[in-house]
Amino acid sequence: MVNRQYLEMLGRKSVIRELSEYATERAKEIGSENIYDFSLGNPSVPAPEAFRAALIRISEEMDPLALHGYSPTVGNPVVKQRIAESLNHRFGMNYGPQHIFPVSGATGAIAHAVRAVAEPGEEVIVSAPFFPEYIPYINGTGAQIRIIPASFEDFQIRFDLLEEAICEKTAAVMINSPNNPSGVVCSEETLTKLADLLTRKSAELGRNIFLISDEPYREIVFDHQSVPYPARFYDHTLTCYSFSKALSIPGERFGYVAVNPAAEHAEDLVPMFGQISRGIGHNCPSSLIQLAVSEVLEETADLSVYEINMNLLYDCFKELGFEVIRPDGTFYIMPKALPEADGNVDSGAFCRKALKYDLVFVPADGFGAPGYFRIAYCVETEVVKRAIPVIRKFVKEEYKR
Amino acid sequence: MVNRQYLEMLGRKSVIRELSEYATERAKEIGSENIYDFSLGNPSVPAPEAFRAALIRISEEMDPLALHGYSPTVGNPVVKQRIAESLNHRFGMNYGPQHIFPVSGATGAIAHAVRAVAEPGEEVIVSAPFFPEYIPYINGTGAQIRIIPASFEDFQIRFDLLEEAICEKTAAVMINSPNNPSGVVCSEETLTKLADLLTRKSAELGRNIFLISDEPYREIVFDHQSVPYPARFYDHTLTCYSFSKALSIPGERFGYVAVNPAAEHAEDLVPMFGQISRGIGHNCPSSLIQLAVSEVLEETADLSVYEINMNLLYDCFKELGFEVIRPDGTFYIMPKALPEADGNVDSGAFCRKALKYDLVFVPADGFGAPGYFRIAYCVETEVVKRAIPVIRKFVKEEYKR
Repeated sequence: MVNRQYLEMLGRKSVIRELSEYATERAKEIGSENIYDFSLGNPSVPAPEAFRAALIRISEEMDPLALHGYSPTVGNPVVKQRIAESLNHRFGMNYGPQHIFPVSGATGAIAHAVRAVAEPGEEVIVSAPFFPEYIPYINGTGAQIRIIPASFEDFQIRFDLLEEAICEKTAAVMINSPNNPSGVVCSEETLTKLADLLTRKSAELGRNIFLISDEPYREIVFDHQSVPYPARFYDHTLTCYSFSKALSIPGERFGYVAVNPAAEHAEDLVPMFGQISRGIGHNCPSSLIQLAVSEVLEETADLSVYEINMNLLYDCFKELGFEVIRPDGTFYIMPKALPEADGNVDSGAFCRKALKYDLVFVPADGFGAPGYFRIAYCVETEVVKRAIPVIRKFVKEEYKR
Repeated sequence: MVNRQYLEMLGRKSVIRELSEYATERAKEIGSENIYDFSLGNPSVPAPEAFRAALIRISEEMDPLALHGYSPTVGNPVVKQRIAESLNHRFGMNYGPQHIFPVSGATGAIAHAVRAVAEPGEEVIVSAPFFPEYIPYINGTGAQIRIIPASFEDFQIRFDLLEEAICEKTAAVMINSPNNPSGVVCSEETLTKLADLLTRKSAELGRNIFLISDEPYREIVFDHQSVPYPARFYDHTLTCYSFSKALSIPGERFGYVAVNPAAEHAEDLVPMFGQISRGIGHNCPSSLIQLAVSEVLEETADLSVYEINMNLLYDCFKELGFEVIRPDGTFYIMPKALPEADGNVDSGAFCRKALKYDLVFVPADGFGAPGYFRIAYCVETEVVKRAIPVIRKFVKEEYKR
């Protein structure tokens, strides 16, 4: 007999995956140049040349026993030291190597962070809009996700709702900045208010509420902005990072959890992550990949295409009269769908109609943003340029704009 | 507040790790040539040159977007196909790519296999001697490990005890062949009896009991023996494999679960592993490592040193009058400790006395073999040769042999 829970999960398909599979099939029929696939968040620019060079040089020069041997459960100390130093000088932190835990991407980071601070049955509060995989990531730990609705004016946190939601079962609040799907960055003002609220509520409850900050898009920001570093604002912060997006290496599965040295149990948390790994199947990343990335920590792929694409799409949707917030970063934008003939907004109907024009948008209802849709513009700019007249045609014909 | 369960685990240190740390410290004091560290199962021979060549060639030639991009949750189809073909022609199986699930090593394999076939509260039966990490690996899933004592004559399974242990809570039986710590291979006779028992008990209970076969040492066998492939004997078999030991690449974290196509729910199990990954933090291995290994699937590191070391140690212990079974494979041997002055056998006392001679052996009580000790001879042969007179001296002085 097999486990019924996982067997039953097979029936429930992800909307993103379904649309992406549809787009792949459709491309085979009509040619990939005729389908505008904005469904998946897969980086579209190559990893930096320096990463390739590091892979080759390390493979050529290093003793294979040292290179491919076991690294300690809590990670390669040289790699941890380099990550700590980079974060310290970029964000004014004071991490030591003992505060850095290498993991196989942001998913692995969240798997460790949530288990370390939440007991089974406790809650992790997430503000919409949010990446829908947070639900299995958090609920899979035995803790429970608790979602508070979005602030649709600016996609910052609704503090009135957050304050109401925090209770004795609250283990952590999780944020995602820059945000998938909205592209919005948590402002300094938001982070300051969040830290104040968490500090006050922690005191009231007599337990420290942790902040889990999921930041895989940290390096993809526009207008030369810098993203405020959440751990600077609140002591009890676990920073979850993945190199997938900035270095364009999602298949290589490497990220980290960084424990703020001022957090409760700061010196215990990385060893606890090591214990958690034993029960969930050890998420240690490849030793070659750890070493190669540690040599290019402050490089990124050429991310400029995302800003170019964002501006083209933002201007297009704005001009067509959509409600849309200009993203601060990521490679996503999330406009509100246009109302149907009956005056109601239905993002599912909107995206189905777009599909007739071979425009693949994802309804954002599952992201906690009913009525909105997500566009992943990690594609070549040429695709965006060709898509824009198609979007105009679609909107004109279907919505009379 | 942090999770109390994981915090409390920090207090409990692994005996192997403690001894290995002691050996590392002691080597700094007296020189590494004067310490005989047999504590850790870390391969001592380099990865094959062909693996290095594959890493370099793939990094040089492949489009970085294709190479480092996301692979599907259930693994790179090219890699899965190659693994299936290799298993099919080596072991007469008929796996398709849909039966292969790439994971980050044997730990990840077990994490998926147990979750897929056991509901929380159900039992996975393991025959001693066994790798002690099985306890957190299995209990971490919500299922419970149930250990049956070893057959100390031959370290095969005690079928009388196994039959008694199987009950309506039994989800799976887990075997490890070649075995860590004994080095013994499950014989064809054992596998035939096991298959018969599982078939009969499954019919009685009205549910199929799965066999989880953990085989990271499959390629390290002596006397040109071949290891019987457990999935050939029983349909409902999940084969857990890691490339760590045969290719000497434990740091690269790559293995697989292979689902016997004749197993119950054979076509569902790999998609179920994909679902399990979401909750435990996705154990997908690095895409570069997957591709490079898939080009050297039938190569191994030069494993001959392990057989040379085994023979030297086996002859030494035999000559000194130890009870010891000659290993069929792995890089472990597990003799019985000599009796103390009071006639009792105490492997802890034995290993502590050995430490005075800078011989680092591990008491095997935690492996379900009280009174025995494990020697990991994945070291240079020269170390074994220098250790042998020291072992003689230790045994003569401390045990008057």
